[in-house]
Amino acid sequence: MTITPYSIWKDVTRIRETSPLVHSITNYVVMNTTANALLALGASPIMAHAWQEMDDIVNIADALVINIGTLSDPWIESMFRAAQKAKERNIPIILDPVGAGATGYRTRTVRDLIKAVPPTIIRGNASEIMAISRGDAKTKGVESVDLSEAAVDNAQQLFSTTGSVICISGEIDYIIGGDDSIKVKNGHSLMARVTGLGCTATALCGAFAAVNDHYQVAASHAMAVMGITGEIAAEISHGTGSMQMNFLDTLYQLSRENMDRLN
Amino acid sequence: MTITPYSIWKDVTRIRETSPLVHSITNYVVMNTTANALLALGASPIMAHAWQEMDDIVNIADALVINIGTLSDPWIESMFRAAQKAKERNIPIILDPVGAGATGYRTRTVRDLIKAVPPTIIRGNASEIMAISRGDAKTKGVESVDLSEAAVDNAQQLFSTTGSVICISGEIDYIIGGDDSIKVKNGHSLMARVTGLGCTATALCGAFAAVNDHYQVAASHAMAVMGITGEIAAEISHGTGSMQMNFLDTLYQLSRENMDRLN
Amino acid sequence: MTITPYSIWKDVTRIRETSPLVHSITNYVVMNTTANALLALGASPIMAHAWQEMDDIVNIADALVINIGTLSDPWIESMFRAAQKAKERNIPIILDPVGAGATGYRTRTVRDLIKAVPPTIIRGNASEIMAISRGDAKTKGVESVDLSEAAVDNAQQLFSTTGSVICISGEIDYIIGGDDSIKVKNGHSLMARVTGLGCTATALCGAFAAVNDHYQVAASHAMAVMGITGEIAAEISHGTGSMQMNFLDTLYQLSRENMDRLN
Repeated sequence: MTITPYSIWKDVTRIRETSPLVHSITNYVVMNTTANALLALGASPIMAHAWQEMDDIVNIADALVINIGTLSDPWIESMFRAAQKAKERNIPIILDPVGAGATGYRTRTVRDLIKAVPPTIIRGNASEIMAISRGDAKTKGVESVDLSEAAVDNAQQLFSTTGSVICISGEIDYIIGGDDSIKVKNGHSLMARVTGLGCTATALCGAFAAVNDHYQVAASHAMAVMGITGEIAAEISHGTGSMQMNFLDTLYQLSRENMDRLN
Repeated sequence: MTITPYSIWKDVTRIRETSPLVHSITNYVVMNTTANALLALGASPIMAHAWQEMDDIVNIADALVINIGTLSDPWIESMFRAAQKAKERNIPIILDPVGAGATGYRTRTVRDLIKAVPPTIIRGNASEIMAISRGDAKTKGVESVDLSEAAVDNAQQLFSTTGSVICISGEIDYIIGGDDSIKVKNGHSLMARVTGLGCTATALCGAFAAVNDHYQVAASHAMAVMGITGEIAAEISHGTGSMQMNFLDTLYQLSRENMDRLN
Repeated sequence: MTITPYSIWKDVTRIRETSPLVHSITNYVVMNTTANALLALGASPIMAHAWQEMDDIVNIADALVINIGTLSDPWIESMFRAAQKAKERNIPIILDPVGAGATGYRTRTVRDLIKAVPPTIIRGNASEIMAISRGDAKTKGVESVDLSEAAVDNAQQLFSTTGSVICISGEIDYIIGGDDSIKVKNGHSLMARVTGLGCTATALCGAFAAVNDHYQVAASHAMAVMGITGEIAAEISHGTGSMQMNFLDTLYQLSRENMDRLN
């Protein structure tokens, strides 16, 4: 299975034309960042977390993104409810297990969620993916301490038990699914120094999965767009502040030619 | 009724001189953005949502802004309490019905709030205004799908039943109140691609209403400043990231001459 | 007691090398800003607030930052729990009493917290520090209305009863502790017009306290880095939007030479 500049661009164009509504139940830290990234790409963000409106929101959404970065019990309840409704409606569900492995609360929540409603795509760093599948990865806060390659076996196992496409972010991104695994090598080290770019990758998976139901490819397209955008933005940035700004500008201005950076 | 570059500037100057304290109970996505916009304009923001401190906060505030973008029951309780206290103190109350029409929870909350304490100003896009007044507008997430003009009749009706100044944002903004309606034509399409600029308009309504008790004029001044600032910022922006930054810079540097862009 | 360009830089280097994990229970408005500032400096941020995971998070953290900017009862419960655990583990606890004095709820919470677990460092503006110690300072929202010098006596008294290093921010920062008080005169007026830079100062205190257990010096280093970074950023900024961006870029690029600006 491969992705190409052409296949990525086709999906970007679809997103721009159809402006899929991506419902995010996400963490407080990154809400503004991910909403702006979805808008820059051409999608429509909505954020809502009260259980009272989960059904209504999921009913009009084209994808559901669940991110456990700043959990609490009421939000967990809404995550389950939204996931259940998304499953009924057959729209893609993207899960970001932020900090899984760092606390029992997070690890349990993620495992319970996956058991109740297997997500379409799970995107995390190596330590998070390892924590979900075997529970003994060393997680240092919300950052990865394992190389993404080390988690490939865990991801394969997780895919076979859940059917979820597993996307491991890192210097190289591995996207595991029913077809041969896909590697995306784009990206820039400055990205790890801006908060919320991992969560942004997950949000973009939602937009791509809304327009492409080959979910392994959709996730790979999202990761390629993240990496390419990050590379271009880093070249014109002087630090993490301008990186954050240039990332959005670049995403907004993305062109077919930019896709040729895929490697 | 008209507004002029001079009348706008007079209010901007008052805001800069008196630095009114604007209390916002707003959504998580835009808190940082709207706090920074109020500071850039010259006002003082405060954000608080616990019912235990609503009375104390409203007691020192010069305006109250209520925005339902990420609702939950505890916040609704605080919104009612703050609105009641603001009414007692006779300070302006500005309501942003984000996503009204998208969920029953939001539509009900807004209607109940308006019934309990009619706001001084309600600012929303066409579909939100239509949803409040007749409840059957098609809302796609938090973005407008109706032209602002289409909501003018609903706004007139809403004004006559509530006495609230109704501000419909769109390519043209319509501000409906006791005097002839006011149109503001400033703005730029890039503004719709940055999250939270609608919420920022509402926050600025709070600052203007704090210094000008002709609330239809105050709301129109806020919309004019939004539009003018957005136009200037867009001219020097390369995408939505720099737009967000330049919007704040422009608002901070706003000059009397800039007001001549009013149209 | 004095601090020097060399002593500051030694701590910055330690932070960059060891990347201490700073756990923040902070307010919604500034989460993104402070997470990005910690990352730019070289530290690792984590934000979590559910009581269920407080022990696990504090167990891996190198410092705990508590900021009461958008309080609610469940968060207060987690603040107490995290503080208790941090005390057990003997990691530094930094408290930012945002808006103390503005509401009884905030003043009470801060006093109760200090009584239960005296923080390592308390950083606030003059009116907040005065409100904690005598409770009758005039607080206008979250901004200071007293000169920082006016709060020095209160800070001395607060230090003697709690043993907490007291850092009063203002045009001149006063850092009160067991040694002679330290003054930091760096900074720029534009900093007060960007939301969350006070909270950022508190977050940076967490990073410095994680690498330097002379806490009065650690807090002074944090304030010096804030002031120096703010001065450099202000020189190249056109308003508050670019100030926010340039602050992060400057913090990311900080050099040994920049420290010579200390005054």
